[in-house]
Amino acid sequence: MLQEDQWFTEICEEGGSAFSLELKSKLHEERTPFQRIEIFDTQTFGHLMIIGGCTMVSQRENFIYHEMMSHPALFTHNRPENVVIIGGGDCGTLREVLQHAEVRKATQIEIDERVTRLAERYFPELCTSNHDPRAEFFFVDGIRWMQEAEADSLDIIIIDSTDPVGPAEGLFTEAFYEDCYRALRSGGIIVQQSESPLYHLELIKGMHQSMRSAGFDSSRTMQFSQCIYPTGWWSCTLAGKDCDLETFREADCNRRDFVTRYYNAAIHRAAGVLPEFVQVALKAT
Amino acid sequence: MLQEDQWFTEICEEGGSAFSLELKSKLHEERTPFQRIEIFDTQTFGHLMIIGGCTMVSQRENFIYHEMMSHPALFTHNRPENVVIIGGGDCGTLREVLQHAEVRKATQIEIDERVTRLAERYFPELCTSNHDPRAEFFFVDGIRWMQEAEADSLDIIIIDSTDPVGPAEGLFTEAFYEDCYRALRSGGIIVQQSESPLYHLELIKGMHQSMRSAGFDSSRTMQFSQCIYPTGWWSCTLAGKDCDLETFREADCNRRDFVTRYYNAAIHRAAGVLPEFVQVALKAT
Repeated sequence: MLQEDQWFTEICEEGGSAFSLELKSKLHEERTPFQRIEIFDTQTFGHLMIIGGCTMVSQRENFIYHEMMSHPALFTHNRPENVVIIGGGDCGTLREVLQHAEVRKATQIEIDERVTRLAERYFPELCTSNHDPRAEFFFVDGIRWMQEAEADSLDIIIIDSTDPVGPAEGLFTEAFYEDCYRALRSGGIIVQQSESPLYHLELIKGMHQSMRSAGFDSSRTMQFSQCIYPTGWWSCTLAGKDCDLETFREADCNRRDFVTRYYNAAIHRAAGVLPEFVQVALKAT
Repeated sequence: MLQEDQWFTEICEEGGSAFSLELKSKLHEERTPFQRIEIFDTQTFGHLMIIGGCTMVSQRENFIYHEMMSHPALFTHNRPENVVIIGGGDCGTLREVLQHAEVRKATQIEIDERVTRLAERYFPELCTSNHDPRAEFFFVDGIRWMQEAEADSLDIIIIDSTDPVGPAEGLFTEAFYEDCYRALRSGGIIVQQSESPLYHLELIKGMHQSMRSAGFDSSRTMQFSQCIYPTGWWSCTLAGKDCDLETFREADCNRRDFVTRYYNAAIHRAAGVLPEFVQVALKAT
């Protein structure tokens, strides 16, 4: 039996499952205009950020998610100079993006400034690049920002959002993908977190369909393990504008001058290999 | 808050995490001479078998584990005719092994006959090959059985056991691997479930060391998602006796005449690709 004051539990209603982490203490709690944010210190996962009752990021395993949301897309793009992150308030994805020397500008559009302020305080290791002169922050609605973005101006859009309910719901729509498509230069890529292959296969199918309908000529799902999210099995889905997503700058990847803990060239290829049941489902789209 | 009568929860003490499944009802409970077994009907995972408080097998996702414990080893071996399964009482691995037409004999050594009897009742789909004339069952201690096994008689040994505590502890020792090595013919392979890459990296390292010390000239870990086990990220580790584990019978795999839901040739290659931190840890062994 899990004592409520000693464990944080996220119930995944539609999955009929729950995941819990053992706590040391609650460090912070607040209700922002957008959502409720809690920060815990855990027994074995370091600091843990909860948004709207869902685990967002822990110090122990966030490296997997942040590396997989950034490096596959950035090493697939020919020359990623102008990168936009929608969401990503904990700044971990931004940090990975700025490891790429080709990047000249990384703009983070997080609707809730408090996520970033709390990350700076409780996840300082994710925020080490926040003062990089190439980084720019806007705390506004990413959907509206993208509607107003200059056409043919961006190389990569990383949609690092919460689940497709609440503030993030509009980020999983064809209308949003159309705005992204318009804002991307030729050769551009979007990459979006796309939930669990076991629980959310229909969502992933729908994302491929919507991305293709919005104009993208290629789309591809990559998978990885992420134990604090439902099923511990997570994915991101990429879509390309005049861009082959099946190849990547492997030589550049192998001679990268920064440290990764999850990603490497072999993982890049392997993450794009999908289990038989996922392949069959996506082929039917 | 999870109501105890509505959820089954497995706490992973050393991980500081827990995984829970929502229940419909308890179908069975007994204490055998070896362990306590419970069977539940869950809301979304079908029937669920618990041994010693740990989730063993559910109807929803066991296909991943059973396919990964069998097909990579069987398609790596040149001609797997004589296969032994240590543990594997739910019979799901046996069923996958017997899909291979080359297999002439599959012997299952499960210490606790009740596991198999309960699987026949509550997981009948896993037991569809139990009456295959090539299948033979012994309900005895696998460690002793392997000590007495004829030398140079087996092609593949699958160690499909519970965690390395209690009855299964002796299955993770160099002494047991030495007995396996002796019992294998040249070209033979052992494959063993090897826990979570995130939580049990030291165990995996130790397995490689022990397998090599026992005489095996090659060893290799493969990973896959398995959401009912701690971290939802699981692995198996193979070791070969005069056998190259890096190649496999890919053409045979592609023209297999049975259905898989997780495994395919690309997954075979991808599952053997390890994240940077795992690679670094195993290189140091």
